[in-house]
Amino acid sequence: MQPECNWLPGGVCAPKGFKANGIHCGIRKKADKKDIALILADAPCDAAAVYTRNKVFGAPITVTRKHLANGKAQAVICNSGNANTCAPDGLSIANAMCTALANAAGISADDVIIASTGVIGQQLPLEPIVSGIPALTAGLKSDAAGAQAAADAIMTTDTRDKQAALTVNIEGTPVTIGAMCKGSGMIAPNMATMLCFVTTDANISADPLYNALFAAVDQTFNRVVVDGDTSTNDMVSIMASGKAGNKRIESKGAAYDTFAEALTALLTKLAREIAKDGEGATKLITVNVSSAPNDRLARDIARSIVFSPLVKTAIFGADANMGRVMCAIGYTPGEFAVDTIAVILASDAGELLVCENGMAVLFDEEKALAILKRPEIELIIQMNQGNGAATAWGCDLTYEYVHINGDYRS
Amino acid sequence: MQPECNWLPGGVCAPKGFKANGIHCGIRKKADKKDIALILADAPCDAAAVYTRNKVFGAPITVTRKHLANGKAQAVICNSGNANTCAPDGLSIANAMCTALANAAGISADDVIIASTGVIGQQLPLEPIVSGIPALTAGLKSDAAGAQAAADAIMTTDTRDKQAALTVNIEGTPVTIGAMCKGSGMIAPNMATMLCFVTTDANISADPLYNALFAAVDQTFNRVVVDGDTSTNDMVSIMASGKAGNKRIESKGAAYDTFAEALTALLTKLAREIAKDGEGATKLITVNVSSAPNDRLARDIARSIVFSPLVKTAIFGADANMGRVMCAIGYTPGEFAVDTIAVILASDAGELLVCENGMAVLFDEEKALAILKRPEIELIIQMNQGNGAATAWGCDLTYEYVHINGDYRS
Repeated sequence: MQPECNWLPGGVCAPKGFKANGIHCGIRKKADKKDIALILADAPCDAAAVYTRNKVFGAPITVTRKHLANGKAQAVICNSGNANTCAPDGLSIANAMCTALANAAGISADDVIIASTGVIGQQLPLEPIVSGIPALTAGLKSDAAGAQAAADAIMTTDTRDKQAALTVNIEGTPVTIGAMCKGSGMIAPNMATMLCFVTTDANISADPLYNALFAAVDQTFNRVVVDGDTSTNDMVSIMASGKAGNKRIESKGAAYDTFAEALTALLTKLAREIAKDGEGATKLITVNVSSAPNDRLARDIARSIVFSPLVKTAIFGADANMGRVMCAIGYTPGEFAVDTIAVILASDAGELLVCENGMAVLFDEEKALAILKRPEIELIIQMNQGNGAATAWGCDLTYEYVHINGDYRS
Repeated sequence: MQPECNWLPGGVCAPKGFKANGIHCGIRKKADKKDIALILADAPCDAAAVYTRNKVFGAPITVTRKHLANGKAQAVICNSGNANTCAPDGLSIANAMCTALANAAGISADDVIIASTGVIGQQLPLEPIVSGIPALTAGLKSDAAGAQAAADAIMTTDTRDKQAALTVNIEGTPVTIGAMCKGSGMIAPNMATMLCFVTTDANISADPLYNALFAAVDQTFNRVVVDGDTSTNDMVSIMASGKAGNKRIESKGAAYDTFAEALTALLTKLAREIAKDGEGATKLITVNVSSAPNDRLARDIARSIVFSPLVKTAIFGADANMGRVMCAIGYTPGEFAVDTIAVILASDAGELLVCENGMAVLFDEEKALAILKRPEIELIIQMNQGNGAATAWGCDLTYEYVHINGDYRS
């Protein structure tokens, strides 16, 4: 059941107790592209994070895991332009960044969440970061402008910043959750170069915070596919300042459920934005699978479809080549019937049945084209064999994706 | 151990006992594109096939499975332009094709291997096929021209025909194996829209024939990735006429081994050609993984790399962005160390170490560019932790792939 949420501006600065900033320090060549972001809490927060499952992972992941072992954090620092992964001196550089920030902000280095995104395999230059930190901390703001600067600084091939915030009522107390994130290539289940930093003024301890985050990520970012690659640097972190003043959430129950559902709603919005802003994407693809044997199979089928390059190129070309959807369903591992499946193509231009009982049906090509020319396409898959359901999000595969990734380093 | 093989021209007509032809019958719009192929043996052959593992599969797969249940076949008929899959009356149309051919050629309909490739979800028109079969059988030839016509007729988005033939000595008797195949999109492990028809004059019964084919396909076509999609219509079939006159191979042993190795060599050549001619491909990528914990992990790692859109676009762009290779290794499921891995970039322009102990090393960018600009790129992955090894083949991901698949039906 969805709690009533009120959306509001302000991103990571919307909840009480947080300031943010982002500047250009010189990791990236272009002087007008911000490349380092900071979120600073007024005091140490309850905190948690989930990480990439890639066995090759960046030095910032190692450092953040260590710092969050006690469930506390006070700041997030994140650079773009270099992933600090598979590169010399990664750990010492990541630690030095934390120390430099801790000194400038008057906090403990152990309370820093650190993240990096960008090219893999090249040494991250420490000097511009250390030189930039005084300006980064001096410019911190607790308003939407601060959140905006931070959101801009973590972008890589993203074409727009991605922020969201909402307020939800927990046992009579309004609680706010804000977030910023970045995509947009290498997005795949189990995260990908996807960074998301969440702030909240909820009063909640680290264990339920982690549980809510883990569950929300599983339902949202782990259902987003841009190109199937799972990155080395993904992280979703959350810091809770407690300043909303709600009765402290220590375990599962009604208050926990409301918080977890609001967090999931927030991350769903951002997951859709990441899919929509996938590298080179022109269209958001939402796949809704229902009446599958179980939820897990529904999820796997939904992922197969958004994963398929042939489905993605067909949607790019507005080509209702829906045999490709059946094909992608068919190679999903697991046991299920295919001769009961219906496929419906939908967008704000209407709905069209294109497949029934596992077979293509004759359909109006003009109507299919009208539906597929819209920017948000939904594929509705009715398995007609159980109660499992799941949603996944992806985007089309375009010339621009090839262009961006054929020439990324230069 | 590789037996000595002599390569020769003639494709499926190189072995004794086979004729072939291919014509335009009218399934495809372009009058100069052949769209139906036939291979006819002089007499019923021992025969076997392996098929797609997609749960959604074409009517021709169902019919061929039934016909090959007795291990006998005398002909292969294959149309391009329409997959006869997820479409009305598929089984009756496939059966009618077999009957029409059987009547024209004077063979049993149960001895026909049938295959279709092309668009999914549209009814296959029977009339042009039935009308075309008399000309198809009348034009059968036992020479290279017949094989060529058949090889041309099964092409879809392939840019060139793919044929091979070789002779191997089995216990003093020269035995010939020939084949034709087509790619080129939807190529993935477990086959994809990949059709391959093998002929041989070996004297070998159906069980060892199946075993040799299954093993060879596992080492070759199942190691080819173009886009990760596994098609609904894949099939590799083999017919053995017995006309070479070797002592009949009934079970495993030296003669079986020689035959199986020669078959693997033949299919390796064709697998490389399919990868090289992947939709839109400009480069063949060969990934060789060695010193992995075991062969299975080596195979999975090799596949992860050739699967990765980010690796594929980097190689298209001749960008030595080898962090992406480490990233793809890292998300391969299974247990292995990453801090022992070396990555070497190679082509006929030289070799270059780009990663050692799991970390990028400084390398000569000019040399990397020279290597990556060549048409055949090898990625050598030394895991340095065991004795497992495997090879996989793929191609780069290009604008042309998007172009072909964004507008395939029209």
